[in-house]
Order: sequence, then structure tokens, then C-alpha cells
Amino acid sequence: MPASPESIRNTVEAYIKSVATGTADDILALYADGATVEDPVGTPVRTTRESIREFYQVIEPLEQEAELVTLRIAANTAAFHFRLITKMGDQTLEIAPIDVMEFDDDGKIVSMRAVWSQEDMITG
Amino acid sequence: MPASPESIRNTVEAYIKSVATGTADDILALYADGATVEDPVGTPVRTTRESIREFYQVIEPLEQEAELVTLRIAANTAAFHFRLITKMGDQTLEIAPIDVMEFDDDGKIVSMRAVWSQEDMITG
Repeated sequence: MPASPESIRNTVEAYIKSVATGTADDILALYADGATVEDPVGTPVRTTRESIREFYQVIEPLEQEAELVTLRIAANTAAFHFRLITKMGDQTLEIAPIDVMEFDDDGKIVSMRAVWSQEDMITG
Repeated sequence: MPASPESIRNTVEAYIKSVATGTADDILALYADGATVEDPVGTPVRTTRESIREFYQVIEPLEQEAELVTLRIAANTAAFHFRLITKMGDQTLEIAPIDVMEFDDDGKIVSMRAVWSQEDMITG
């Protein structure tokens, strides 16, 4: 049976929370084996757990807040707009991508593609 | 050369305007030959111009307003949240999907996948 919308929503909410305040391993636990990550779209696709862990380890030490803005779910796919604010001393860096994820029957992420560009970054 | 972000933005804005107030042929003109439409994700993919025209002809006679809420662009891909309000007598029906589109080098749409479900519909 395909993942329910509730299961997909739970994974998305856990993902956003983990990106902001969790560890790389917390995030990895939401991904299925064999999952792929393309962030942003147009950059090389990460196809191994090691390369996906490496991607999230970069942001693990940062002080971040995240917020889900809009989530849409259809079949095994979610698209969501979320806001990630990184604090760096007195400054903040805000990125608010639209991520597109596909899920397996257990509600684990099998692919993630993030749609955003440098122009969407806001420094404050 | 891949389509520029400006070219992609222009196509998305023309798409939203055409969906609200244009004809099916206005919308078709934004699609490349061989384009595919999956709306919502999980339903059969439309792969012919006839089946894509048929899809948009259903909404052509409706009185609609549309508004772009959020647009993100990366490489040849756009993801955007937009609001489509249909007036039916005294009632309104609002759908606000997140659409994911890929574009060819001329900025024409090669694939459209709309992420939304019945639960996202708002009647007023």
C-alpha cells in the first residue's frame, strides 16, 4: 500500500525539524536505502548514503530555525515550501526553497529535489 | 543554451494568466511538442497534444482568477505555488496547487506535474 498522506506529512515535518535542529543521522533515518538527493536541481545527484550524509553534515553545526510554509501531497509525492533561517553571529541567512519529494510505501523519502537559486537567499 | 530564469518566469506567468482567462490553445502554445501533463500527480500522464488540450478545455469556459504565490527556479525546473479561484454563481472554489514544470531551451514546458489533492480545495 502506498504511504498515506498522514505518513508523508509526518516525514516532511520530521525532515524540516531535523534539518533545523537535528543531526545528519536524524535526517538520514528519514531516507530509504537507495534514495537520491538533488539540491539544488541542476547540481550532481547524490546517490549514496555517504554523499547524502556529507551534504547534511555541512549544516549540522549551524544554528537554524525552520518553518513549513505550504505543503501539498498527491499520491507518493509531496511538494513543500519551507523557510530555513541560519544565524551567523549578528546576521541571518534565509533560504526558502520548494522541495519535491517522493516516498516509498513506508513513508521514507526515495528522492528529494530542491528548487531554489542563490537569488532566493535573503541576508538580514 | 538552457532557458534563462527570466524566460522560465515569463512562461510560468503566461501559464497562470492563460489558465485563468485564456483559451486551451493559449495554454497549449506554452507547451513544447511531446510535452507531458500529470495533474494531479498519481493520475494517468497525458502524453498527446489532444489529451492535454482536452484537459484545459474543461476549464476554458469557467470564470476564473489566478495568482502566483511563490515561484522557485533551478536550472530547467520551476516549482510554484499558485491560487486558482473559480466562480460558480454565488460560490467560489479555490485550488492552490504546487506545480512542478521542466522547460526546454526555448522556455517551453516539457513536463508539468501538479501536486494537490481534493483536501486542498476550499469552497466559499
